[in-house]
Amino acid sequence: MSGIVVQNIARADPEVIDGLAACGVATVHEAQGRTGLLASYIRPIYTGARIAGSAVTISAPPGDNWMVHVAIEQLQAGDILLLAPTSPCEDGYFGDLLATSAQSRGCRGLIIDAGVRDIRDLTEMKFPVWSKAIFAQGTVKNTLGSVNVPVVCANALVNPGDVLVADDDGVCVVPREKTEAVLEAARKREAKEVEKRTKLTSGVLGLDIYKMRERLADQGLKYV
Amino acid sequence: MSGIVVQNIARADPEVIDGLAACGVATVHEAQGRTGLLASYIRPIYTGARIAGSAVTISAPPGDNWMVHVAIEQLQAGDILLLAPTSPCEDGYFGDLLATSAQSRGCRGLIIDAGVRDIRDLTEMKFPVWSKAIFAQGTVKNTLGSVNVPVVCANALVNPGDVLVADDDGVCVVPREKTEAVLEAARKREAKEVEKRTKLTSGVLGLDIYKMRERLADQGLKYV
Amino acid sequence: MSGIVVQNIARADPEVIDGLAACGVATVHEAQGRTGLLASYIRPIYTGARIAGSAVTISAPPGDNWMVHVAIEQLQAGDILLLAPTSPCEDGYFGDLLATSAQSRGCRGLIIDAGVRDIRDLTEMKFPVWSKAIFAQGTVKNTLGSVNVPVVCANALVNPGDVLVADDDGVCVVPREKTEAVLEAARKREAKEVEKRTKLTSGVLGLDIYKMRERLADQGLKYV
Amino acid sequence: MSGIVVQNIARADPEVIDGLAACGVATVHEAQGRTGLLASYIRPIYTGARIAGSAVTISAPPGDNWMVHVAIEQLQAGDILLLAPTSPCEDGYFGDLLATSAQSRGCRGLIIDAGVRDIRDLTEMKFPVWSKAIFAQGTVKNTLGSVNVPVVCANALVNPGDVLVADDDGVCVVPREKTEAVLEAARKREAKEVEKRTKLTSGVLGLDIYKMRERLADQGLKYV
Amino acid sequence: MSGIVVQNIARADPEVIDGLAACGVATVHEAQGRTGLLASYIRPIYTGARIAGSAVTISAPPGDNWMVHVAIEQLQAGDILLLAPTSPCEDGYFGDLLATSAQSRGCRGLIIDAGVRDIRDLTEMKFPVWSKAIFAQGTVKNTLGSVNVPVVCANALVNPGDVLVADDDGVCVVPREKTEAVLEAARKREAKEVEKRTKLTSGVLGLDIYKMRERLADQGLKYV
Amino acid sequence: MSGIVVQNIARADPEVIDGLAACGVATVHEAQGRTGLLASYIRPIYTGARIAGSAVTISAPPGDNWMVHVAIEQLQAGDILLLAPTSPCEDGYFGDLLATSAQSRGCRGLIIDAGVRDIRDLTEMKFPVWSKAIFAQGTVKNTLGSVNVPVVCANALVNPGDVLVADDDGVCVVPREKTEAVLEAARKREAKEVEKRTKLTSGVLGLDIYKMRERLADQGLKYV
Repeated sequence: MSGIVVQNIARADPEVIDGLAACGVATVHEAQGRTGLLASYIRPIYTGARIAGSAVTISAPPGDNWMVHVAIEQLQAGDILLLAPTSPCEDGYFGDLLATSAQSRGCRGLIIDAGVRDIRDLTEMKFPVWSKAIFAQGTVKNTLGSVNVPVVCANALVNPGDVLVADDDGVCVVPREKTEAVLEAARKREAKEVEKRTKLTSGVLGLDIYKMRERLADQGLKYV
Repeated sequence: MSGIVVQNIARADPEVIDGLAACGVATVHEAQGRTGLLASYIRPIYTGARIAGSAVTISAPPGDNWMVHVAIEQLQAGDILLLAPTSPCEDGYFGDLLATSAQSRGCRGLIIDAGVRDIRDLTEMKFPVWSKAIFAQGTVKNTLGSVNVPVVCANALVNPGDVLVADDDGVCVVPREKTEAVLEAARKREAKEVEKRTKLTSGVLGLDIYKMRERLADQGLKYV
Repeated sequence: MSGIVVQNIARADPEVIDGLAACGVATVHEAQGRTGLLASYIRPIYTGARIAGSAVTISAPPGDNWMVHVAIEQLQAGDILLLAPTSPCEDGYFGDLLATSAQSRGCRGLIIDAGVRDIRDLTEMKFPVWSKAIFAQGTVKNTLGSVNVPVVCANALVNPGDVLVADDDGVCVVPREKTEAVLEAARKREAKEVEKRTKLTSGVLGLDIYKMRERLADQGLKYV
Repeated sequence: MSGIVVQNIARADPEVIDGLAACGVATVHEAQGRTGLLASYIRPIYTGARIAGSAVTISAPPGDNWMVHVAIEQLQAGDILLLAPTSPCEDGYFGDLLATSAQSRGCRGLIIDAGVRDIRDLTEMKFPVWSKAIFAQGTVKNTLGSVNVPVVCANALVNPGDVLVADDDGVCVVPREKTEAVLEAARKREAKEVEKRTKLTSGVLGLDIYKMRERLADQGLKYV
Repeated sequence: MSGIVVQNIARADPEVIDGLAACGVATVHEAQGRTGLLASYIRPIYTGARIAGSAVTISAPPGDNWMVHVAIEQLQAGDILLLAPTSPCEDGYFGDLLATSAQSRGCRGLIIDAGVRDIRDLTEMKFPVWSKAIFAQGTVKNTLGSVNVPVVCANALVNPGDVLVADDDGVCVVPREKTEAVLEAARKREAKEVEKRTKLTSGVLGLDIYKMRERLADQGLKYV
Repeated sequence: MSGIVVQNIARADPEVIDGLAACGVATVHEAQGRTGLLASYIRPIYTGARIAGSAVTISAPPGDNWMVHVAIEQLQAGDILLLAPTSPCEDGYFGDLLATSAQSRGCRGLIIDAGVRDIRDLTEMKFPVWSKAIFAQGTVKNTLGSVNVPVVCANALVNPGDVLVADDDGVCVVPREKTEAVLEAARKREAKEVEKRTKLTSGVLGLDIYKMRERLADQGLKYV
């Protein structure tokens, strides 16, 4: 099952991808029926980044980053690297040299269910990473994994070419074939939110905007 | 036990509350006999905020934020929302729309033993949140909880109207009826610290300021 | 085994220590054969600090910071305090007063496998701390520990006088007698990285720089 | 707030207490409105014990078991010791000697949000313990705490004299003044369960027993 | 994406399923290329059970076990229930009544990335469960989920009808269409192990059986 | 630092080792000044085993058990294998085949700061293991580590030839050169405990046996 590199993967429309980035993780997650979130322990190494891109996936053994080098050759501009170790690991698979290489190919960032290092350099380079850990622990290059195969990463299924959306709220994966529908739903949601925000700012209550009072009373809520 | 909203709760004196905010969590915690801290996993979503306010408490089922809407109606200027789920949960109960609504009523922030989302918006709005997790996971509005009942939140007992003090060190709860005494003790403590800080800056040792040498020798400390 | 203060410890050459700080944790860790890292849960209270110094070690009971006062007297300019509790604890052993005292003696920072408080003050004072937790919980001064004895801290062995290197990537300990050799190896590593970074920036792949293609094929990697 | 021993506490009716033990944790928890459970990390040191008793509470500093000795004097036959440390700790506060002493006074077991040791002896003695950890780490006897004051233990509020029910499912606290009502509700619940169990054994579905089909359809459940 | 019940799912050959059970988790995992393991926090509630069966999957909201009732109707003899909550949860979704109902339909056990209760009853009934937690916390029946859709459970992808193998080592999922090939590989592996075990029992070293000495020397291993 | 096998290590006196086993972990830990415990997450795979033996240490990369094979050749009757991974890992490094091999050389058990598998077989073979995890995840044999070098394992320093004591309470390491002194102290402690146990069984309080009442009063304890 390991030792495979899939070279040609389908990617979503770049404009749709950028549209999803603009919507952000929370909205995209809601727009696709509250699915696709990676576990909450995946956190950004610095705040403020908001990106989306096509997933180039890596399945790698614990403590071995050989496949990262292999994956970088498969990157196209606009892609995001995503690494899932085959068993739990927090070693620093990735640092400033690999980021330099990935960035030179147009890679937008890294999502990794493991560790990362050279945080200061990555921050200065504006190469955003969402990781399970920050850990300087080095890795070896002795055992094969695979590139561009389906992986489960931080409890979410990611297929190569799926769109990853990442910001300060975490990471969400959108199946490639649903990206257009999800973007449309996300924009509708955003449009509605503008209206709601105006009302809420003026002091109108959610209880009234969403007409909750009757249902609350039906359920038996008592004011004392 | 659930399905209740207590509408009229007593609150502490606003000036006392602001005085506690100025003292900060560590000092207030010491001043009330080293009690009242919420667990250390409750962390601010951004650094630098220091607030105090009266607790409007929410007991909510896992993954259901219906009661947050109910609680917002109960807010007065200077209050802080505090949510304890009835079982451990890290879903994002709260985001920018609810924050807009709460802020329009003068709410100073949120303490939540669960997750929060829309971190970027909350930071820009300067609506501070101390939470267990940052997670975009959405919630439903199907099951009742209660508002303004006593809750255990992150291993601390909080009664509605108790004063919550929160800063970069975490969160401390001060029972409403003890706020004045605690503020007085906190200010005395602060006054003493000014003096100590001057001495310590000049190089005098704590061993001498606190006269520890004799007691250390009595206990058998050996210098080799 | 406790109740001992070792007063005269050997320290490494100050220039070597500063050289290690300049190299940073990830490079130093690699240069000494991928050893010496403290566990990844030890994190800085603010980003951007990069220090190295001689370890003044503290072995302290849970929830008791008496020995910190004793240790401060043993500090020399350029030292770093390192505290390992005798059993797991996250109490706030250290705050702004102790930092003031330590800083007045030239201490460069604190590494602690427990909690710290007064984060805002420590940040303003530029007194960097790497800790397991941020927690306002106070401690007592009732039970002896030891100062400048070997300790295991966050799963790493630290002898007094060993050099601690700390930055945003975490903390690494370098045995005192190896500091010169490690610095030399670290600088060689850095020199090589400059060259690699230039190549990688220009788009040359790691696969080619490190001549990995043949070995990957030998192992059976398949491109499909 | 510490340094207090409350000597005379009210206890519930012994027959009611034994009735609650017979119902078990899950049933009692349901019978009092799904409240009162201690966190799930509190686990029995051996399986098969099912007890209930009046809580003699201990608030103790981390790593200091002095107050356990004080609390044992306050025990009456049928009581259960409950210890909450003032900050998180997993040290072994309790072992076979303390169990011998407690058992000689009729104590039925220990609930502790910390560690315990001498597991083999405690198992042979049939002295059941529900704890956060098993850890041989010793404690000191240097700092006061309190006995028979209200404590928050594993995220649940426990007042002295409240009834603790503990079995393989965990631990539940029943406020003393509600014990009779809870027992009555628990027995009703048990009676109903007998009937349901018979139907379910014969193959009748919960969907039909609880008449769920219509409500599921209303909510939009689709069979495909 | 939720609110769907898939009624007719394909299942693997019952004899193949039983063959996989006999091989056990570790062997099956190796035989399919070291894939398919659920996370190690999924543990059996009692030791000694070893089962395999076809997965009837449940995707359920946190703290809501309505869909378990729906899923039980879909069970056939030889099936195993598998529940993945839509966000992390440790509530007790399942107890003795549901087990009675499931067992009456020939269900062999439950795998759940959440909590379970009534441990004593389940053990007596010999209804094995592998869970994330044991927790008496009750659940509601208010929000739809889905039955027999693909789910990610404890970091593993499970499709309805896949074969689950579970024993004291944990849980492994075998894709339905690979079950025969995996069983064949597992049996070959077992046959080889018999031979190896005999040699190892007689004192022959793995170093010699697997001819490792030369490769170790090539890598530079030094005996001192 | 890796790639080394130390062949001749000193071992403690077999009778002393067996004496320490008879005392058990809690007593040995106390007898050597409350030092030497491995972290509490190291738990036995089955209850009831109580062993002691000389440590044959293994430093191994994450997910790679090659060095276990190398270490087994170094085993003598009465030894215990101890494995510390170079970074956190829970893979199953060890199962029934390796246990067969180790047992054939007189090895008494395994302590591992990682995972183990084939639990059922190991239990039947009576080969005790204390581990961080039970996990069927397989490992590779590609990267060197070392055998019989000093390691930090579960936050404790272990030198080859040190004596490991393990039972249901956990694991304690006794430095080889201190074994006789520790055994003597442990036996004295046991003798005293017999006497205390008799008194405590008869109902005499620890408060009186240890003469605590006066010191408690001095500290300010109040009975109310």
